[in-house]
Amino acid sequence: MTINLKNFLNPKNKLSKMRDFQDLDHLNGLSISAVSADLYENMARDDLTLFYFNDGAKYASLYTKNKIVSENIKYNQKIKNRYIKALLVNTKNANCFNNNGFDALVQLSKHLSKELTLRASRSDVGTNDTVKPNEILFACTGVIGEAFPTEKIKNQIPYLVEKLKTVQNKHVWVKAANAIMTTDLKPKLAFEECKIGEKEVKLYGIAKGSGMIAPNMGTMLAFIFTDADISTSILKDLLRKNVNTTFNAITVDNDTSTNDMISIFSTGQVKNSKIYNLLDPKIQNFNKSLNKIMLNLAKQIVKDGEGAKKFITVNVVSAKNQKSAKNIAFAIANSPLVKTAVAGEDPNWGRLIMAIGKSGEDIVQKKLNIKFGNLSVIVNGKIIPNYDESIVKEYMEWESCEINIEINMGEGSFTVYTCDFTKDYIDINADYRN
Amino acid sequence: MTINLKNFLNPKNKLSKMRDFQDLDHLNGLSISAVSADLYENMARDDLTLFYFNDGAKYASLYTKNKIVSENIKYNQKIKNRYIKALLVNTKNANCFNNNGFDALVQLSKHLSKELTLRASRSDVGTNDTVKPNEILFACTGVIGEAFPTEKIKNQIPYLVEKLKTVQNKHVWVKAANAIMTTDLKPKLAFEECKIGEKEVKLYGIAKGSGMIAPNMGTMLAFIFTDADISTSILKDLLRKNVNTTFNAITVDNDTSTNDMISIFSTGQVKNSKIYNLLDPKIQNFNKSLNKIMLNLAKQIVKDGEGAKKFITVNVVSAKNQKSAKNIAFAIANSPLVKTAVAGEDPNWGRLIMAIGKSGEDIVQKKLNIKFGNLSVIVNGKIIPNYDESIVKEYMEWESCEINIEINMGEGSFTVYTCDFTKDYIDINADYRN
Repeated sequence: MTINLKNFLNPKNKLSKMRDFQDLDHLNGLSISAVSADLYENMARDDLTLFYFNDGAKYASLYTKNKIVSENIKYNQKIKNRYIKALLVNTKNANCFNNNGFDALVQLSKHLSKELTLRASRSDVGTNDTVKPNEILFACTGVIGEAFPTEKIKNQIPYLVEKLKTVQNKHVWVKAANAIMTTDLKPKLAFEECKIGEKEVKLYGIAKGSGMIAPNMGTMLAFIFTDADISTSILKDLLRKNVNTTFNAITVDNDTSTNDMISIFSTGQVKNSKIYNLLDPKIQNFNKSLNKIMLNLAKQIVKDGEGAKKFITVNVVSAKNQKSAKNIAFAIANSPLVKTAVAGEDPNWGRLIMAIGKSGEDIVQKKLNIKFGNLSVIVNGKIIPNYDESIVKEYMEWESCEINIEINMGEGSFTVYTCDFTKDYIDINADYRN
Repeated sequence: MTINLKNFLNPKNKLSKMRDFQDLDHLNGLSISAVSADLYENMARDDLTLFYFNDGAKYASLYTKNKIVSENIKYNQKIKNRYIKALLVNTKNANCFNNNGFDALVQLSKHLSKELTLRASRSDVGTNDTVKPNEILFACTGVIGEAFPTEKIKNQIPYLVEKLKTVQNKHVWVKAANAIMTTDLKPKLAFEECKIGEKEVKLYGIAKGSGMIAPNMGTMLAFIFTDADISTSILKDLLRKNVNTTFNAITVDNDTSTNDMISIFSTGQVKNSKIYNLLDPKIQNFNKSLNKIMLNLAKQIVKDGEGAKKFITVNVVSAKNQKSAKNIAFAIANSPLVKTAVAGEDPNWGRLIMAIGKSGEDIVQKKLNIKFGNLSVIVNGKIIPNYDESIVKEYMEWESCEINIEINMGEGSFTVYTCDFTKDYIDINADYRN
């Protein structure tokens, strides 16, 4: 008997509908450059990326919930402007738990503001824009505890500013998305567009993963740019609202970085009507598009999780409440035993039982249903009659796998995205600093 | 410069002082046998172990805190006797989430009680002991969700009873400790002796690990036998008191089994004076010995963690309180990034910072001290001047490693024991059921 299971069940079909980076092009109000400051020493890769908003951008950021945070996050939190002009991103060095990192950023902000102001006054640019040091934000990612390479970065700033592309195409975006990566294998980009009232607006996003990924934004940077005109407070509300089901619904290894940062920048080049609160019907499409782009980037991070071979979606439905569903979903998604079973293409539902139980949430065994994709394994707390493991095993061979859990005790549901746990994760992380 | 660091710092020196299984011999009131019921199908290993107390034993057990528990734990919890006569242990099948497991134990208890009573009536034994079905406990470990192999076990019971050794030596103990193993590489045995008043008493223990090990007794079975005469309620108090700093202070992978069980059995063959409560000075030595034997077995489980190459001790001192110290210690010990760094012999203290922060406990960075063994790395929140990583790297090459964290915010301390995270863990768990 041959059922064409793959077409019927493959969760990848859902993913393939998402817009991809081929659609990214120019966004009004933004310039981008990426260069190498040789932070990786002779690796010949870009490690310094500049996003410049010539007319300024309203913005909002969310940061890691780790109790120890990097110097750039401390620095950004002191910036109280409602507009910023630039975001500088470096990789290789996390700028965390060192002795020189905060002062370095003070220096760099002065230097970069001077160079950007100088450029604006040049006859070939002629915007006569001035950039102040307190109009610059920083994102850092890399190794914790190493001295910040201030001089190397400082020396490259003139070149970085010179290389600014005032018009972007997909190649500019891919170069930037590559430049912010650490152990990521693939650049992560996403695109959405929607209307606010009558006006067409764009949302462009890039992100990096790919270890220390866990709820509360494990090591990730994500930057979303829109040409819409949305106030700082609405941007913050939108980010907060959408982060729970996107970046806070993924996990690679349950470790949380000191450096996580997700920001949205609104260049305001499209003169849409003003939005005063989240209930405004005109912001609903934007809200949906923002959720899509954030979820798309979050999924890309998981798919590129360190050593990941398989993408796992854990759906928990009908739990007592959402908190309970979330705890159960994360107990499964963070279980090394579940993740290694998926790596081994083994539908070891016993480990799902173990993980559901260890969540500490109340479960009534005889109400529990478990499916891999649409394939039932447990119904009403019992293995289905004539359970044929070979069919489920075939399903496990695909690149992505859906674990569906019905608790049948209430209305709470939550979905978590994760990846399998392979030997490559150990390889990458045992040798990370070498 | 050559410092003989190894002699000075090696935490193994502490371990080597512990008594080992060479000391295990006969314990009055106990008989043991272990046979193969072919549960592993042609693997030719023992998988069925019987502990028989001819005069009965007072006992106490603690079980997993997983919300889904195996059938044998449900069964044991219904046994209300203050004495039991036998403990039957099987491996390969966890007797959890199946349709036949509880009834199977009802059947097996009848069958085993009959066989044990029959044996006692034989002229060569002549104890005329009777064993009732409700005087038997069960421990199961193995794969979740498979039908319980009732018939295979039942068929072996006459042979298992026939093979009972009424006099034990170390070989009998090692055979039993081997028979209760699943993926363990080494049998785990420990021995202590002490005095209760004037009377010399013994404590013998065996245990098995070695995946799904986490607080609240990850997959482990541990059985402690003493010839002392201690009441059921005192035994329970003693177990509870000592489990927090021993079996609940270890973690391999932060997964918690459905089957964990730790029991103590008191055969009462030594007529020590009666103990009425834990404050009695006469029980203090026994309490200390029990802690030692439990800690010894717990450490053996960690050292034999799936794929483990290195033993890690995480000491957190001067935290706000013990709960805070425990959270920080477990955040470190459960971090895949810390555990892979140890596997890679990389003193990546940045990941310790990350894990300390992700515990969610309040930390004042400038009060924080971090040492590997006695080697300071962070003092008052800063990397020590002239930090020489090569010395710490040398320390990381040993088989065991101490991570010492001083929070300097209070009096709370806690120690957690764990192991590194290697590719072998993935191998073992990706292929566990094949």
